[in-house]
Amino acid sequence: MPASDLLAATADLVAIPSESHAEGPIVDHVEARLRALPHLTVERVGLNLVARTQLGRSTRVLLAGHTDTVPANGNAEARIDGDVLWGLGSADMKGGLAVMLTLAETVPDPAVDVTYVFYAGEEVAAEHNGLAHLVRHRPDLLAADVAILGEPTGGEVEAGCQGTLRIEVTLRGQRAHTARPWMGRNAIHRLGELLRLVEGFEARRPVIQGCEYREALQAVVVSGGVAGNVVPDLTSVTLNRRFAPDRTEAEAADEVRALLAPVLEDGDDLTVVDSAPAAAPGLDNPILRSLIDRHQLAVTAKLCWTDVARFAALGVPACNLGPGDATLAHTADERVDRASLDRAHQVLHAVLTTPPN
Amino acid sequence: MPASDLLAATADLVAIPSESHAEGPIVDHVEARLRALPHLTVERVGLNLVARTQLGRSTRVLLAGHTDTVPANGNAEARIDGDVLWGLGSADMKGGLAVMLTLAETVPDPAVDVTYVFYAGEEVAAEHNGLAHLVRHRPDLLAADVAILGEPTGGEVEAGCQGTLRIEVTLRGQRAHTARPWMGRNAIHRLGELLRLVEGFEARRPVIQGCEYREALQAVVVSGGVAGNVVPDLTSVTLNRRFAPDRTEAEAADEVRALLAPVLEDGDDLTVVDSAPAAAPGLDNPILRSLIDRHQLAVTAKLCWTDVARFAALGVPACNLGPGDATLAHTADERVDRASLDRAHQVLHAVLTTPPN
Repeated sequence: MPASDLLAATADLVAIPSESHAEGPIVDHVEARLRALPHLTVERVGLNLVARTQLGRSTRVLLAGHTDTVPANGNAEARIDGDVLWGLGSADMKGGLAVMLTLAETVPDPAVDVTYVFYAGEEVAAEHNGLAHLVRHRPDLLAADVAILGEPTGGEVEAGCQGTLRIEVTLRGQRAHTARPWMGRNAIHRLGELLRLVEGFEARRPVIQGCEYREALQAVVVSGGVAGNVVPDLTSVTLNRRFAPDRTEAEAADEVRALLAPVLEDGDDLTVVDSAPAAAPGLDNPILRSLIDRHQLAVTAKLCWTDVARFAALGVPACNLGPGDATLAHTADERVDRASLDRAHQVLHAVLTTPPN
Repeated sequence: MPASDLLAATADLVAIPSESHAEGPIVDHVEARLRALPHLTVERVGLNLVARTQLGRSTRVLLAGHTDTVPANGNAEARIDGDVLWGLGSADMKGGLAVMLTLAETVPDPAVDVTYVFYAGEEVAAEHNGLAHLVRHRPDLLAADVAILGEPTGGEVEAGCQGTLRIEVTLRGQRAHTARPWMGRNAIHRLGELLRLVEGFEARRPVIQGCEYREALQAVVVSGGVAGNVVPDLTSVTLNRRFAPDRTEAEAADEVRALLAPVLEDGDDLTVVDSAPAAAPGLDNPILRSLIDRHQLAVTAKLCWTDVARFAALGVPACNLGPGDATLAHTADERVDRASLDRAHQVLHAVLTTPPN
């Protein structure tokens, strides 16, 4: 089924460095290849590319992938050894980009309309995320019936994603000399009870559309203190809650507020500093459903937040499905093998060429 | 009894600015006055002055005071209003210095040998402390049977002082993504149990030579965290223990180690980062005893660490006794009144002019 050597095609992309904030050359490369295809309408928005068929099909499938990588870690150079390609970005996610480009170049007359999205800035702070940029400025380009992101999933389906929110809690006390602590109140000591409540958080494991999610509440940063001889009057702790798609951001925050209410007092503060919604698995979508059934794909719940939530927020069911092993991403041993690339290509080729029911 | 107007004498000293690290002018002023007195042998060691009688008496009494002040707080100018002197350093401790200088100038033939010590750098980090400098380089100048520091005590006796030590405890965990915290171990969560133990510390209140001390253990600084989406593998907390004179530094540290042992594991760390010994009240010293009895002075245990511990470490019993209210020290409303100065002068004059038993 592969129209080309996907391992070599991926190596060509790994050979173009594209660390976040320096995606220019790879975007230019991809843009030139897309513009050479007469069946695609290409738009460039900053460092993001959207290429679409306009065939008037009843259904539109969107395939998306990010062009940037994390910084190199002694693995900048692409190296093919047998059927394995080693190198930065091979799994996360130039393998997925190679599959997308191959489909764009070899399927000029798909059974569904197709939108290919190549976006920058996924590996860095959300403010730099190219998909977020498109959502804000050109949501029309993202219209689709279903979206599939090519992040490494070993060719299986990772459905939806959990939401995430960060809450900063500030506890107050009263300063005093540490030789006379009874004249004040130690804010850091108050942390003890708060952390006990955090540890006692009931991490739910709801099953939604057959996917088991698994929530979490973790203290991620703590700070406090005035001087070595002062009873501290202030301490703060940042908590990160991961929540399943059966909770809104507001509900998830309220549950943390309720959990901590027993230790919070007048003068304390609890602020949501950062929040992103969960995405439902979207497995009731007929295209995702038939894709899973036809290829007998494994489906797991995505516990981390991913860009699929941006599509879910637009009303577009989305999942992750791409070649490569996610646990190798961001490691010096990052690699992808030929079978994984071919398998992802086979599945996505079928999505594009099978008329929807 | 006062040989001069002590309020005016104190005002003269307040009029010479002497913030820590800028004591030069006041040291020059005091040195000139001391060198004008033929009954005193004066030595200058850096910014520290030691002036001694050499009368061959059986007993030597040392009077000590620091020449520096904290930074001004809108109160740099001396202002006399009736019998009250307002201004930076009036209580802490130019009132005490004025009493010492007056005694030096008016008691040329004391019943005991006298050592007057004027030292710099008391209000800043220990490394700048002039008394510590003398202890290290000229301990011979500090030889005495008893030492009285003129810190503000309202003219009463503050006996000995508690020791202080700081311990930094590092707790380790294992990093993981916060969406999969069960893959790691949260070091900050471990703090909860440690802080519970710290709060449960039994703060002893031992009575020593009639003085009740009161111990304390307080968390003073806490920090930890890697990133908003990472289960932290490291956190540290600094504890400050204040301990009574019936404990050595080593014993005090060992008791904290024993308290925390239930939560410490391989890979954790507990380090004493800073330590200063306690000083026994020294109330069995005959000069201190008769001074207290003769003037019916109140005696309280000193809970903070003070320079009396430096004398105790040299084997010289020491206490604080000086004019002014310690709670006004370091405030914008710092002041001293005439009665307090006269009272301190009266007590110390008696010490110098009464033959010891």
